[in-house]
Amino acid sequence: MEFNKLGRDELNTELSSLKKIYEDFKAENLKLDMSRGRPCTEQLELSMEMLDFPSSSDSCKTPSGTDIRNYGLTDGIPEAKELFSELLEVSTKEIIIGGNSSLNLMYDTISRAMTFGVYGGTEPWGRLPTVKFLCPSPGYDRHFAITELFNIEMITVPMKEDGPDMDMVERLAADDPSIKGIWCIPKYSNPDGITYSDRVVERFAQMRTAAGDFRIFWDNAYIVHHLSDKPDRLKNILEACKNAGNPDRVFIFTSTSKITFPGAGIAIMAASENNISQIKKLLGVQTIGHDKINQYRHVRFLKDLKGIYDQMKKHAAILKPKFDIVLDILSSHLGEKNIAWWNRPNGGYFISFNTLPGCASAVVKMAADAGVVLTSAGATFPYGKDPNDANIRIAPTLPPVSDLKKAMELLCVCVQIVSIQKLLGDEE
Amino acid sequence: MEFNKLGRDELNTELSSLKKIYEDFKAENLKLDMSRGRPCTEQLELSMEMLDFPSSSDSCKTPSGTDIRNYGLTDGIPEAKELFSELLEVSTKEIIIGGNSSLNLMYDTISRAMTFGVYGGTEPWGRLPTVKFLCPSPGYDRHFAITELFNIEMITVPMKEDGPDMDMVERLAADDPSIKGIWCIPKYSNPDGITYSDRVVERFAQMRTAAGDFRIFWDNAYIVHHLSDKPDRLKNILEACKNAGNPDRVFIFTSTSKITFPGAGIAIMAASENNISQIKKLLGVQTIGHDKINQYRHVRFLKDLKGIYDQMKKHAAILKPKFDIVLDILSSHLGEKNIAWWNRPNGGYFISFNTLPGCASAVVKMAADAGVVLTSAGATFPYGKDPNDANIRIAPTLPPVSDLKKAMELLCVCVQIVSIQKLLGDEE
Repeated sequence: MEFNKLGRDELNTELSSLKKIYEDFKAENLKLDMSRGRPCTEQLELSMEMLDFPSSSDSCKTPSGTDIRNYGLTDGIPEAKELFSELLEVSTKEIIIGGNSSLNLMYDTISRAMTFGVYGGTEPWGRLPTVKFLCPSPGYDRHFAITELFNIEMITVPMKEDGPDMDMVERLAADDPSIKGIWCIPKYSNPDGITYSDRVVERFAQMRTAAGDFRIFWDNAYIVHHLSDKPDRLKNILEACKNAGNPDRVFIFTSTSKITFPGAGIAIMAASENNISQIKKLLGVQTIGHDKINQYRHVRFLKDLKGIYDQMKKHAAILKPKFDIVLDILSSHLGEKNIAWWNRPNGGYFISFNTLPGCASAVVKMAADAGVVLTSAGATFPYGKDPNDANIRIAPTLPPVSDLKKAMELLCVCVQIVSIQKLLGDEE
Repeated sequence: MEFNKLGRDELNTELSSLKKIYEDFKAENLKLDMSRGRPCTEQLELSMEMLDFPSSSDSCKTPSGTDIRNYGLTDGIPEAKELFSELLEVSTKEIIIGGNSSLNLMYDTISRAMTFGVYGGTEPWGRLPTVKFLCPSPGYDRHFAITELFNIEMITVPMKEDGPDMDMVERLAADDPSIKGIWCIPKYSNPDGITYSDRVVERFAQMRTAAGDFRIFWDNAYIVHHLSDKPDRLKNILEACKNAGNPDRVFIFTSTSKITFPGAGIAIMAASENNISQIKKLLGVQTIGHDKINQYRHVRFLKDLKGIYDQMKKHAAILKPKFDIVLDILSSHLGEKNIAWWNRPNGGYFISFNTLPGCASAVVKMAADAGVVLTSAGATFPYGKDPNDANIRIAPTLPPVSDLKKAMELLCVCVQIVSIQKLLGDEE
């Protein structure tokens, strides 16, 4: 039953029965938070063993001879560099092990670029009258918050099925020297769950940029966060940049926040040796080094790539059923009504949900009024403004299954009510 | 025997016998590093029990209901705020618990001030043609490295027996609106081991500053790092600033790096509620929050103020004998020769040692040539330049006692040789 093909009476009948259901939901006094991509408690339990090392009876010297308790090694212990460079498919000279927050690494990288410039740049970005960033959207609100804070002008670039609209990216980057960078979540993108195609990665590596110090901020947050036995594959961007003669173009980020503990993981940054050595020099002034005990704790717990993959299978076993519930409820309540569209991601943390234009804010508000907090409508766009007011990021990971069902059923009711009101209004 | 009262022949005789001793040292092929204030292995062992909590069998919920494994609480868990606000004598609303590096907190605070300004300021410091900082010296090289990196002009202020030369501080701060701040290590200062008097603290709180957004960077790094049963007491600067009507003037820093683990401690920042709320807003963009597991680990291990004091007594029991050895050797080899002067600190990590003017670099070089690395001469002054070339920072904490003896004996030989050469040269 496609809603746009129903008459006013049919829509009104539907509306009043939906409103009754909505009132029943309201009477339940729900209090559910689906706003952020937080792992659930069961997922946190998967890494508890990690806390057993080191204990008071263990040696705190690594095989490479570092006492992990003392000062030093600003860029990380060799054992952590080894493991995570393998994960990121870079060399151990192209990596820095950070603290517990890859967001903080990205913030620092922007902050350094603004104040000191990047390797090969002629001046700090902050000295220029205008600095602009390309922002494939829907995207990650925390990326946009950083660029907004630094007064970097954000240009929305639409997401297509295999990554950002590269025609637009290429055209803008080639034309405007004040465009200094782009935010990318290249694998299981937040919120669309899209993995960039090889062709998109190659175009990024090869494209002409008017700014000689253009940087791709490649936030590979969901690098191993598969929901399927046939995971997406992402082409190695650093290698592609090297092959294209643009070795310094990319800053790669990832973390173990959604592999081990969200608040107590390890953040990692990778880039060309030139980039890394410029950053290491500045890092030596900034900090006495990051927590090496936690670095070694991670190495001992995860062991190797196989250890990471095994751990991620356990996460997937918890998450896949939650994603399936969301997708099933969406299909059964909204399928074929022609009022909503959503992605079926192969990994990551979100389902990107799109309403009829102009409906997302009203849906999020209605859900909140009934006790279900969703990510704010617009949050997935620069400046919090979705030009179509259509995208809602669904984060299924945190709530227990029963809550998730309830929340999704409510969401579907809200979407139908708002859509019908929209359709009725449009006809007036 | 005062060297300056000896004749040339006596000095030459002394010199040739000292040179023989120096050559003997050289033949030993020493390899000792006394350059940094690093805790020694025995000190690291004092906190090993801290690693036993949480283990895989412990709950990761704090009494206040936080799951320390997940995201959130950018400014720290309530339990850590409670403990460390008591330590710093501030309220729990005046504190932020950071990552593992107080240096990083200071760097970030400078960086934020440059890019965004401070609370109550009219513009970001970085927009001004010139920003200057007062630098009581000898001081901490890593402070000076931060200000130098941000192109902040550093003005050396001499240290007196009870803190910086406050006449000079007051005059400069009142005259020049481009002077935006001052670096202070108010307790057991690095390297002098001086604790600021109440009068100095009051003058800091009350002084007139030409810059409306002047900030004291109060690095209370050695807050409980006593070497004596009668520890120095430091007046509460935040309270003094409030009483003087300048509540927002001070940023206070400390860390557990030298209470628990140097590389895996907890850094803490305190300031007025206005300052803290401005910083928290920016911090929310910068990071997903600091490592709460490590925060709770610290709270459980240290427990309360008494726990901290007890822990510090254990550190002192290891460190006091090392300081005594240094002081004994200095007294017996250099006492009454009128060629060197040093402090007898009541706490902290250093002994500040002063040669005849123009001798420090040569002494450090001679020691290095014989295999003993000292902190670079000049490092304790802005831009690494000691105007008198006289100050050497002695860091007795890291080396084992036998190494320390050896290193100090060599140092005394080098000091005598360089001093005699200086005295002989001066007469020519």
